Amino acid sequence: MGVLSYARRGVAVFFEYDTPRIVHIRSKKVGVINRIIQFLIVAYIVGYVIIYSKGYQKFGGIDSAVTTKVKGTIYTNVSGLDPLYNNRIWDVGDYIQPAQENGAFFVMTNVIITPNQTQGECAEDPAIMPCDTADNCTAGEQTPNGNGVMTGECVSYPPEPTLRSCEIHAWCPVELDELPLEEALLKNSSVFTVLLKNSVEFPQFGIKRRNILNTMDSEFLHKCRYDPNNATAKLCPVFELGVLASSAGQDYAKMAIKGGVMEIVITWDCNFDRDVHECISAIQLLPSRRPNDELAKGYNFRYAHYYYTGDVQTRVLYKAYGIRFMISVTGQAGKFNIIPLATNIGAGLALLGIATICCDVVVLYLLNKRDFYYEKKYLTVKDQDAFLLGEEDNGPPDAGSTR
Amino acid sequence: MGVLSYARRGVAVFFEYDTPRIVHIRSKKVGVINRIIQFLIVAYIVGYVIIYSKGYQKFGGIDSAVTTKVKGTIYTNVSGLDPLYNNRIWDVGDYIQPAQENGAFFVMTNVIITPNQTQGECAEDPAIMPCDTADNCTAGEQTPNGNGVMTGECVSYPPEPTLRSCEIHAWCPVELDELPLEEALLKNSSVFTVLLKNSVEFPQFGIKRRNILNTMDSEFLHKCRYDPNNATAKLCPVFELGVLASSAGQDYAKMAIKGGVMEIVITWDCNFDRDVHECISAIQLLPSRRPNDELAKGYNFRYAHYYYTGDVQTRVLYKAYGIRFMISVTGQAGKFNIIPLATNIGAGLALLGIATICCDVVVLYLLNKRDFYYEKKYLTVKDQDAFLLGEEDNGPPDAGSTR
Amino acid sequence: MGVLSYARRGVAVFFEYDTPRIVHIRSKKVGVINRIIQFLIVAYIVGYVIIYSKGYQKFGGIDSAVTTKVKGTIYTNVSGLDPLYNNRIWDVGDYIQPAQENGAFFVMTNVIITPNQTQGECAEDPAIMPCDTADNCTAGEQTPNGNGVMTGECVSYPPEPTLRSCEIHAWCPVELDELPLEEALLKNSSVFTVLLKNSVEFPQFGIKRRNILNTMDSEFLHKCRYDPNNATAKLCPVFELGVLASSAGQDYAKMAIKGGVMEIVITWDCNFDRDVHECISAIQLLPSRRPNDELAKGYNFRYAHYYYTGDVQTRVLYKAYGIRFMISVTGQAGKFNIIPLATNIGAGLALLGIATICCDVVVLYLLNKRDFYYEKKYLTVKDQDAFLLGEEDNGPPDAGSTR
Repeated sequence: MGVLSYARRGVAVFFEYDTPRIVHIRSKKVGVINRIIQFLIVAYIVGYVIIYSKGYQKFGGIDSAVTTKVKGTIYTNVSGLDPLYNNRIWDVGDYIQPAQENGAFFVMTNVIITPNQTQGECAEDPAIMPCDTADNCTAGEQTPNGNGVMTGECVSYPPEPTLRSCEIHAWCPVELDELPLEEALLKNSSVFTVLLKNSVEFPQFGIKRRNILNTMDSEFLHKCRYDPNNATAKLCPVFELGVLASSAGQDYAKMAIKGGVMEIVITWDCNFDRDVHECISAIQLLPSRRPNDELAKGYNFRYAHYYYTGDVQTRVLYKAYGIRFMISVTGQAGKFNIIPLATNIGAGLALLGIATICCDVVVLYLLNKRDFYYEKKYLTVKDQDAFLLGEEDNGPPDAGSTR
Repeated sequence: MGVLSYARRGVAVFFEYDTPRIVHIRSKKVGVINRIIQFLIVAYIVGYVIIYSKGYQKFGGIDSAVTTKVKGTIYTNVSGLDPLYNNRIWDVGDYIQPAQENGAFFVMTNVIITPNQTQGECAEDPAIMPCDTADNCTAGEQTPNGNGVMTGECVSYPPEPTLRSCEIHAWCPVELDELPLEEALLKNSSVFTVLLKNSVEFPQFGIKRRNILNTMDSEFLHKCRYDPNNATAKLCPVFELGVLASSAGQDYAKMAIKGGVMEIVITWDCNFDRDVHECISAIQLLPSRRPNDELAKGYNFRYAHYYYTGDVQTRVLYKAYGIRFMISVTGQAGKFNIIPLATNIGAGLALLGIATICCDVVVLYLLNKRDFYYEKKYLTVKDQDAFLLGEEDNGPPDAGSTR
Repeated sequence: MGVLSYARRGVAVFFEYDTPRIVHIRSKKVGVINRIIQFLIVAYIVGYVIIYSKGYQKFGGIDSAVTTKVKGTIYTNVSGLDPLYNNRIWDVGDYIQPAQENGAFFVMTNVIITPNQTQGECAEDPAIMPCDTADNCTAGEQTPNGNGVMTGECVSYPPEPTLRSCEIHAWCPVELDELPLEEALLKNSSVFTVLLKNSVEFPQFGIKRRNILNTMDSEFLHKCRYDPNNATAKLCPVFELGVLASSAGQDYAKMAIKGGVMEIVITWDCNFDRDVHECISAIQLLPSRRPNDELAKGYNFRYAHYYYTGDVQTRVLYKAYGIRFMISVTGQAGKFNIIPLATNIGAGLALLGIATICCDVVVLYLLNKRDFYYEKKYLTVKDQDAFLLGEEDNGPPDAGSTR
């Protein structure tokens, strides 16, 4: 054949079309099996993978920025309460510590205040390091989970002179680890409000959303309070702390005593095949992610205010119990995209082959007429190097026959 | 057949090969349809899924750690400015609050200072809780969005004695919510610089990168300033705050008055099939993620410095307006991996079946010669239980015929 | 045909079954190629994709909340040490700053204290802005990376009167950037402990876990210390800082001098097809994510305590060096799910077609008997519009023949 002939043949390739030859079997039994399996596969692919699991969408995550602002004041006025804690106002500057955090805020609900501490030597809390003689006190060693480093002396403890404890280098006097009341000092902080401002971006789709909607006005923002059971109030970005706790199945007053951690989850689950204004956030409060199980429950930390009395550095030590609200923003958005759809349809078409495989098993191995069907479906060709099965293969191989 | 025969047959399975029988149709019309559909599918799979969308790579996310360090000082010297704010230097200790945050930093640009507050009773800001008589003031209730809890008295407001407001338990005197200047007190903070140090790890690939490259030296780091329009300065990790704002399309001086939130997005989009040193970060500033739309705009918070005057706890209250820079690090890296490639090729092969299905529809239903092609493609076999279609099926079913 | 006939035909569709007609070739050569390729594909799909890479599971990420509590005290007692730093106790209130952060904590290990600063004019650090005459000092300009804004005067520097530097508006006296000791002041902080409480949720599976297990009791939590080489102690949530550093391959004492950043990665890699109690966290410490490479190494920041001396606002400035521990929680969980399994099997079935394609190439193009096999596999049908290849095509097209 000449070059021309090859060229013709190359062109001819474009005008060809191959389609498998099929045995078309009309049989109620096998046909029903075939159609049922096909139906299940198609239903699964179309119904579950594509429609229910949105297999026609590409999904993308979010970037998020949250800011918080807590408002509210409490005046403590309890007869018998230590004057350190009583007849005073507690405002944002007092109970929010640190003044701002990234993705979290802490509201103090109970506190142990130790005023007027200066550097010196004094008796450790007897609950931490009691002693009989100086032999119990190793100079230079810190008291375990305590307030300072031992001097090696055993001294009497001024608040209860009958008790003796190791003397320590410390900020003196040491903190007495006793809460002022049986209930939480600032348990009324449940009526405090927090404004959550959350702006998110869906970088894959170039869309930005806020939890403060354009349909809200300034008055709504000042007056509204979040309420999960009210269609309008559900969108309000101002939350009463007590409502946050009860949404998480918690008793605020009880949690306030020893503190705790609560997780506010803001979820953006958006479908950009619909109107983008339907993409709004949902608030969820997680009750049991807080670490207030039996072990290591509660939440507290210490901080101090430092100043000078004359030349002496002095501090007020606060052991602040309270509720730490952690805000996490999660979410995703989906939008129609040809790639996941094609991948899912491709996988579905491949799965359809399973129906044929199942029916072939029935037809070729289980039916009485299996030999008849085998003969229709298969054209057996023996090569010269065929592995021989016995007498049936004694004839000359087909491929050896002259054409 | 004996055991030997079965064994032979078992072995024979390994020397077999099944290939579908094909009708090879040479037709310009159908062939062209076939090739066009095949070409589209191959182009889509190879061009879009595999090459453009990097369907041959496995993707992995990043872990990241960011630290920030702001530098700069301002001396305020404005005639007529309240002495509280004037003739003083503002340094890092003054305008960065809290001193450090995780993934964010706040630069104070404007402030309302209320010095010398002590616990007591005084008149609330008349803008918040004006009154004519004591009946307007409910004892024990907090003033809404105000500074304290009402005593039940209505008193005159000392700064403007003609006004009357409810007396409250509060840190007295209460804050007067009025900015010292029309412009931002620290608007020159736009020349402050921040050094961002970002180290990331791609855990799936075990690769670590920093935004401070090995090609930089100490002098470059001290002198350089980020400039998005300069190839070298684009890599500099030292940013002027004003440049950050303008990169986000913001006017720093205007934003500084009431504060705002700005998002610095550091993106690592790496291709580890290339040289790992090409994996560098890109800085992006998001203008509209800031919550300074019309509603609930600006950003401020309160904090206080506490000390003692004699025995009386005293504080200075700061209402700090400023810009909160939030840093988010996102990114992914891709590297050749056989699994996504095989999945995509598998899906592509399955899709190729679509070309045959489409052409079969044309050949078997649309062409004039459809009956001719049907006969070539299909071998119809009727089982004994076949569903009969009428006269054409009157003959005995094939499967019933003796072989 | 009547309506009835069409209806019958519609029903008949449900009792049909198509199966491809196959050429069954018995050839050792081709059969072996076929089976080897099939085996490789099945081994890859089953072994690698499905079993090794858990292709039968759906994966989901985690939400996480972490809190930290550091404990420990140090007493500094070094002869020759400046009294500012000596003979004093350092407790949590002193060395943790800010008192709490979200997902991080900072432990001060070294510090430069500048007490008794007030607003005024004084000489800048000569290392920053030396001068010979006032011409070197531009009034109104901040000293680069310095402490204030120049007045335009050149004055002598009181601590070393032979040196002259520009006078600045600043918090005076300015900080002298010199560490108190050659080693870290609080290098013994390596024995401090930190309790990490981590609660996670797997939202896709509705499962919650903590790093404090139910099998632990209060005594274990108080006494245990994390030890990566001990099966029980490996689960302990209390970590010695020195052990954290050495786990990351760091020398704590050396790192403590100039500070640094360390990343604690808590990993939850769970398989919910097993017992949920096997889902526990693993701690990993990343050495090289810290930014203490040659350039821009160390970690420090400044904060201040403000108070009043009479009417004059005074502050103590701290330049705190220390180790910033950043905690990141990553993880995923997998659970059997039909979608990824079906997708992977579908892709696998499609890949099996590759074996047939490869063998077809061998049989139809490489074997001597290729023409024989071609004839068995293909039934060539020429349409009237077939592209003619030459003499062989001279006969009338098949499709044109009368049936």
